[in-house]
Amino acid sequence: MTAERALFARMVSASEEDWRAHIRHEFVMQLAAGTLPEACFRRYLVQDYLFLVHFARAWGLAVYKSDNLAEMRRAQRLVAATLDVEIGLHIDYCRGWGLAEAAIAAEPEDRATIAYTRFVLDRGLAGDRLDLEVALAPCVVGYAVIAAERMADPQTRLDGNRYREWLGMYAGDEYQDIAREAKAALDEQFARRGGEGRFPSLAANFALAARLEAAFWQMGLDDVRSGIQRK
Amino acid sequence: MTAERALFARMVSASEEDWRAHIRHEFVMQLAAGTLPEACFRRYLVQDYLFLVHFARAWGLAVYKSDNLAEMRRAQRLVAATLDVEIGLHIDYCRGWGLAEAAIAAEPEDRATIAYTRFVLDRGLAGDRLDLEVALAPCVVGYAVIAAERMADPQTRLDGNRYREWLGMYAGDEYQDIAREAKAALDEQFARRGGEGRFPSLAANFALAARLEAAFWQMGLDDVRSGIQRK
Amino acid sequence: MTAERALFARMVSASEEDWRAHIRHEFVMQLAAGTLPEACFRRYLVQDYLFLVHFARAWGLAVYKSDNLAEMRRAQRLVAATLDVEIGLHIDYCRGWGLAEAAIAAEPEDRATIAYTRFVLDRGLAGDRLDLEVALAPCVVGYAVIAAERMADPQTRLDGNRYREWLGMYAGDEYQDIAREAKAALDEQFARRGGEGRFPSLAANFALAARLEAAFWQMGLDDVRSGIQRK
Amino acid sequence: MTAERALFARMVSASEEDWRAHIRHEFVMQLAAGTLPEACFRRYLVQDYLFLVHFARAWGLAVYKSDNLAEMRRAQRLVAATLDVEIGLHIDYCRGWGLAEAAIAAEPEDRATIAYTRFVLDRGLAGDRLDLEVALAPCVVGYAVIAAERMADPQTRLDGNRYREWLGMYAGDEYQDIAREAKAALDEQFARRGGEGRFPSLAANFALAARLEAAFWQMGLDDVRSGIQRK
Repeated sequence: MTAERALFARMVSASEEDWRAHIRHEFVMQLAAGTLPEACFRRYLVQDYLFLVHFARAWGLAVYKSDNLAEMRRAQRLVAATLDVEIGLHIDYCRGWGLAEAAIAAEPEDRATIAYTRFVLDRGLAGDRLDLEVALAPCVVGYAVIAAERMADPQTRLDGNRYREWLGMYAGDEYQDIAREAKAALDEQFARRGGEGRFPSLAANFALAARLEAAFWQMGLDDVRSGIQRK
Repeated sequence: MTAERALFARMVSASEEDWRAHIRHEFVMQLAAGTLPEACFRRYLVQDYLFLVHFARAWGLAVYKSDNLAEMRRAQRLVAATLDVEIGLHIDYCRGWGLAEAAIAAEPEDRATIAYTRFVLDRGLAGDRLDLEVALAPCVVGYAVIAAERMADPQTRLDGNRYREWLGMYAGDEYQDIAREAKAALDEQFARRGGEGRFPSLAANFALAARLEAAFWQMGLDDVRSGIQRK
Repeated sequence: MTAERALFARMVSASEEDWRAHIRHEFVMQLAAGTLPEACFRRYLVQDYLFLVHFARAWGLAVYKSDNLAEMRRAQRLVAATLDVEIGLHIDYCRGWGLAEAAIAAEPEDRATIAYTRFVLDRGLAGDRLDLEVALAPCVVGYAVIAAERMADPQTRLDGNRYREWLGMYAGDEYQDIAREAKAALDEQFARRGGEGRFPSLAANFALAARLEAAFWQMGLDDVRSGIQRK
Repeated sequence: MTAERALFARMVSASEEDWRAHIRHEFVMQLAAGTLPEACFRRYLVQDYLFLVHFARAWGLAVYKSDNLAEMRRAQRLVAATLDVEIGLHIDYCRGWGLAEAAIAAEPEDRATIAYTRFVLDRGLAGDRLDLEVALAPCVVGYAVIAAERMADPQTRLDGNRYREWLGMYAGDEYQDIAREAKAALDEQFARRGGEGRFPSLAANFALAARLEAAFWQMGLDDVRSGIQRK
């Protein structure tokens, strides 16, 4: 019977604490309440830009690791969504927050960014495409869950919230569709390449990826407090 | 002084015989003369469709192996050119030659197709992006050279030639530009990631790739003669 | 019930014709009968030496793709068995057949060698360790099956057979143990990383690998007949 | 003229500050002075055990990425040194410090461990073997430099120093030879696969790897102070 539940939901259940540490991270809660210091958000934006470069690499790798044309095309769309749209939006968005592209590109990658992105790529290269997509799911699907949850939360304040646009983007139909597709792809691959015996290791990698995402949010908060993390 | 010559031209000079065996292969000469048996061309078309799937995988891998956004975007354009345009053209073209898509997809991959495509992917994974692009060059640039040479050859017969469209496509500006870009990318990467010490191994892989391309043409001719190569 | 059968046996059943084409190839039958021309065997020996280099690379890759120390150590033992023992034996053996090491290393890799070895490596990189081991199984386990079957066959002639040593090595306890371990590893990984849904794609890759092994034997015969395959 | 200097020395010169932050890290200085709290050292030991697993994976990958048998054999020796010797020593050593193997294996990998190990593996997969060895050099050669420098430092206290054995091991001939070989391999590969144009990117990756090693030491100190880093 559990086998009939969606893989994503099962992995969330199996990593409850780590998952919650990611999707209800203090950074996210303050962002939704509009109380997040701007310096924290700027720090996040810059690192998220650097993150997206490796995110596009991960989907390029997924093109290589595809078993058929449909899989290749979905990976290709995500490379394009990242390189043609998201990275551009980030640059525009950063500019709106007073960050020039040159300044972003010159920023050193934080260890939290390195840890999550390279963990994902290693899972993708050591394992198969399902391992890769499972390691990416806390990011791809996680952002959709975070935005949807916060939009539905009465504590969230949209009026006058500097971060409203960010919430709106990830809560919007376009991004929610990407997340839905990603969940469906997990189920399709688990049926075709998985099996119950594989669940524990997938769930463990999902939990670790969620923890690395939580560390990514934490970096935004920490940096401002201490400045220690910077190169 | 040799260091100033373009890498592509130097690799061609260093592998003269293998290169000629590829670009002036009997298959190509008969195609330009319009004397190639249709069965040979159909055989080639089907295997070339199967080849393109791995070609797209190779450029997906190149997205992963890129050092910067510009490199990623060029690889992404080649994934798109393959998946969005070339594979579609092949299917249309095959249909024009009486081959349905389902029939093509059901065809077993010939050993010549396996040998070249997997050799390329292995070079790309064992080495860096320059190794990958060098192994792809006899295909990417080779087709442009073949079509341009044949178009300039007085022996080539275009009137009533069933293969005229094929020659026209690869001799056309769009494809010639792709080849020019590929040659420029080789030089740029050789400057940034290479050096004279690396030339012998690049030239050896280029020569082997050219030989595997020649074997790919030969497969088209052999199959018809003997049928032995088929599964 | 089928799920309880060993994965190797199931893959053999699913690829009957391709498997038989490999393990009862004319080359093998002639070798067991002692009627194989020496030139064929020499040709095979040289290409098998070149094959072993990539075989060791494949087990190095398996070290990287391991999930735990026990998996790493088994892959490490196979790297060592190849580099420390098999390649040395091959060189000694070739010498006994009048082939100097320098001559072997200078020989161009045949397309049949390239096709099988690079197919294996691509499966290992695009997929996970189970995909890698499945692609290797027609070699690792196949040789043990071939030698055991031929030893049990009344048609096999050992007295005065020049190839007796070859049969004895692969029929011997040491090699048979390696094959047994390889089959056990397939079951262990299929339990931990597989599931029924994955069987069709594993069986398809196993069948293709068996076909590429059959082509490898064929190369030994063809070359002598025609010399065409050589560079 | 600079081209004649050893690659390792040139990369150290080019990343002076990051290199010093690694080899003269407070953790190392306290270890040499015998003043490092035991809890810090235990923390380091456990993470270093987890590190070694990925270190062995990296050398397995190097077997795959080798261009010739000599390269394969050197990588194989380092896999063996790690799996057969170092991991065993670590377990013995940890036991001497009151840490059972089961406890070590159950410990979650710290983000500092994840960041450095996966960065190395990604460099090795995206680039070639030289990229892989450059990313490993701050570890392989760095430990030899640290131990030799501290042994030569009058501030170092060996009498009654609980960490004397650790310093002795890395300052010993056996380990110093491994480091010397690693430096020679960098030069050999830079001659064969590099060139001046490649130096800036190699130096940048070396500097980042040194920074990630410094963060690894810092983890040992931080953890004790705050406990924050733990899962």
